Amino acid sequence: MKLKIQLKSKNLLGIRELNREEIELILDTAESFKEISTRTIKKVPTLRGRTIVNLFLEPSTRTRTSFELAAKRLSADVVNISGKDSATVKGESLKDTAKTIEAMNADLVIIRHSAAGAPHLLARLVRCGVVNAGDGAHEHPTQALLDLFTIREKLGRIKDLHVAIVGDIAHSRVARSNILAFTKMGAKVTLVAPPTLLPVNIEVFGVDVSYNLDEVIKEVDIVYCLRLQLERQTENLFPSLREHTTLFGLNMARITRARENTLIMHPGPMNRGIEITSEVADLPQSVMTDQVTNGVAVRMAILYLLIGGGESV
Amino acid sequence: MKLKIQLKSKNLLGIRELNREEIELILDTAESFKEISTRTIKKVPTLRGRTIVNLFLEPSTRTRTSFELAAKRLSADVVNISGKDSATVKGESLKDTAKTIEAMNADLVIIRHSAAGAPHLLARLVRCGVVNAGDGAHEHPTQALLDLFTIREKLGRIKDLHVAIVGDIAHSRVARSNILAFTKMGAKVTLVAPPTLLPVNIEVFGVDVSYNLDEVIKEVDIVYCLRLQLERQTENLFPSLREHTTLFGLNMARITRARENTLIMHPGPMNRGIEITSEVADLPQSVMTDQVTNGVAVRMAILYLLIGGGESV
Amino acid sequence: MKLKIQLKSKNLLGIRELNREEIELILDTAESFKEISTRTIKKVPTLRGRTIVNLFLEPSTRTRTSFELAAKRLSADVVNISGKDSATVKGESLKDTAKTIEAMNADLVIIRHSAAGAPHLLARLVRCGVVNAGDGAHEHPTQALLDLFTIREKLGRIKDLHVAIVGDIAHSRVARSNILAFTKMGAKVTLVAPPTLLPVNIEVFGVDVSYNLDEVIKEVDIVYCLRLQLERQTENLFPSLREHTTLFGLNMARITRARENTLIMHPGPMNRGIEITSEVADLPQSVMTDQVTNGVAVRMAILYLLIGGGESV
Repeated sequence: MKLKIQLKSKNLLGIRELNREEIELILDTAESFKEISTRTIKKVPTLRGRTIVNLFLEPSTRTRTSFELAAKRLSADVVNISGKDSATVKGESLKDTAKTIEAMNADLVIIRHSAAGAPHLLARLVRCGVVNAGDGAHEHPTQALLDLFTIREKLGRIKDLHVAIVGDIAHSRVARSNILAFTKMGAKVTLVAPPTLLPVNIEVFGVDVSYNLDEVIKEVDIVYCLRLQLERQTENLFPSLREHTTLFGLNMARITRARENTLIMHPGPMNRGIEITSEVADLPQSVMTDQVTNGVAVRMAILYLLIGGGESV
Repeated sequence: MKLKIQLKSKNLLGIRELNREEIELILDTAESFKEISTRTIKKVPTLRGRTIVNLFLEPSTRTRTSFELAAKRLSADVVNISGKDSATVKGESLKDTAKTIEAMNADLVIIRHSAAGAPHLLARLVRCGVVNAGDGAHEHPTQALLDLFTIREKLGRIKDLHVAIVGDIAHSRVARSNILAFTKMGAKVTLVAPPTLLPVNIEVFGVDVSYNLDEVIKEVDIVYCLRLQLERQTENLFPSLREHTTLFGLNMARITRARENTLIMHPGPMNRGIEITSEVADLPQSVMTDQVTNGVAVRMAILYLLIGGGESV
Repeated sequence: MKLKIQLKSKNLLGIRELNREEIELILDTAESFKEISTRTIKKVPTLRGRTIVNLFLEPSTRTRTSFELAAKRLSADVVNISGKDSATVKGESLKDTAKTIEAMNADLVIIRHSAAGAPHLLARLVRCGVVNAGDGAHEHPTQALLDLFTIREKLGRIKDLHVAIVGDIAHSRVARSNILAFTKMGAKVTLVAPPTLLPVNIEVFGVDVSYNLDEVIKEVDIVYCLRLQLERQTENLFPSLREHTTLFGLNMARITRARENTLIMHPGPMNRGIEITSEVADLPQSVMTDQVTNGVAVRMAILYLLIGGGESV
């Protein structure tokens, strides 16, 4: 397979920076890569001899592992760098970290950082490609892309679907990337959250808002649960965990009000019993494990599209 | 070499779950793999494209490294996941960790966990293979297998040998796996420890017990020293370190009482000067480095037998 | 390319142990390896199937990453072991760590340790090769070698050049290795530092000393800035950070006094605004990124020369 179309940028920084054609290119490419991970020998030589740096300056197991597997299944060499947000990775010294990585002839840097915009800064400082694996409360574009892939796979399309995104919208990079992704692909989005967990500039997103999950759930094709970051509770952003779970948690009673086969999604890791009950999490229409599987395929596609130039699959 | 016999299970959870034929199959396979690590190019393509996840939720350097080398010498792709026993790896969320790993199409998960039974739980939750690399005070089967391999290599057989296992039996997963392994293979086992460091249900193991190392050492073919977990001392399980070392430590005076060439083994890391003196540790019949070398071969055999189906060596 | 000359030792422990011919061999070999990292497929099979252990018992990102990339670009298998200077890596137990690594049939151990001499101790304990990646305040030979490589590349020679090494000489293994390397290769070295940051046995090095950077900078071909270890300030080794920066920091005013094209070097990571201003760090004659790039090439050369015996590039 020789792909002719390409991404416009050397980087994948956010859904905001992608147009609909690029998103479709990524999803189509992921489709052709998905099968590789089901083989006994789940490895192709596509990116042999490429150097990919996993720069995870915020802890993450699943996203880091997903990128690492995607890279290894394409035969790239991967170097993991982790670290808390220490002095050496802040401010001006991100510049020196970037120059160091570039000087070692990395082809691609995958960065997770607690500061919004860090991947964009990095991308301006290096000639090699940069992939945003989550930056503060800003974006997590590969999560949104694997979510789109999963929806397209399960429901055949994204356009004109209605998605409810439920929970702590304000602090969620997943929500932000998904709002951009769903609306860009022609889906309708309704945010469901208490006012304190909604972003202040909500009107710019062009989405509906509701405080009533029981009403919204009847109308949607997809319920997208966000992880509740439990440490927020101490900040008095919601009155009590129990109240939040009662009003915005996904449980069997609520699912019964939904259309049959309403897709249930969650970016993981789940707080079972908080934003979603165990019973709901294990329903057939809950597609969290598909999301994880598709994450590897979508990341393989992104690595290939960004640094596989000239190589055939 | 095409092996026809196979392990019955997709998992290696404990010595308890293996029968004598399976143990011999593992030891024979390890024998054929041992030579690979002595080559200049110590790598065969046997497990190319397989994905092995090293899930070490309790710190470990030597066991993790041994598995990692075993996997790499068979050309598998290895992903390391480490972490303290945090909230995210306890209780119900081990289920989600398992589902995530499976969803990424891992072929095998090697798990070390502070909770006894965690590997068994994991194995029920995933379709892929699971290897127990140590679970609480329960089992550490690959340690026992490499110990059997080393004994067979040094003494030509295991059956009818007499092994003394000395030290903190109660808290040792190594002791538990080795008691099962030695008795299963027809060796006689005598446990030597103060009553406070013996398990409460000692009679179920079908082994002898002694409080007198000086007597036992005269009769055995193998002295197997356990690592004393020094933090136990504060729990008042033994009166004082000095007294424990005096009564149960392996020193030259004691070794002089033993038969010539009595094999001395220790799972490592040693507390030199506590459960074993440096002089004894460095004797020719102390085979700790052989144990480490054989650990890689035995683990290569296990990886091959569990996920190398259909591949020839 | 078949190299006939070889290093005399199985180890690279310090610049002190190398003679001029060996240093030139390393630099010449690095020259032939440098091009590999500029290819799309930056990987050669030279060290396929070799096992290299990165034993970093002191935190380090850039040196560890540089060695890891060097090894992977030569197709070696790399295992990373990290850890704080805990009880298990001190005193006698370094012996057991060494025996364990050897028993796993590692070909080469790259060690960083907080104690001066740890790599030398390790090298006596194992048959496999040992590379010193920094030991206490003693030596950091691969840093000095990559610095020599960079100077030779930029200025065409090392002999008869004049180098000023500026800053905290007393606590710097980089300074120590570079003093030895520069003098061995026939360069003249002047140390510039306050008396409290000079080593006590300064006369043994056969170098000049000055307290006046403004004078020295006029005469030198290279200014080599050391990283100021900021935690030293609390030890009252220098009166104040501001005073140190005023007297010994590299700023534009000082650079203006230097000859045109005076090379500016720093081992990284830089404290911009302390030992060097950002403006100076970003000048064309500041070659810090070249140093990083050359670090990978020099380390590839060292790995090849130590364990690539009989293999052609």
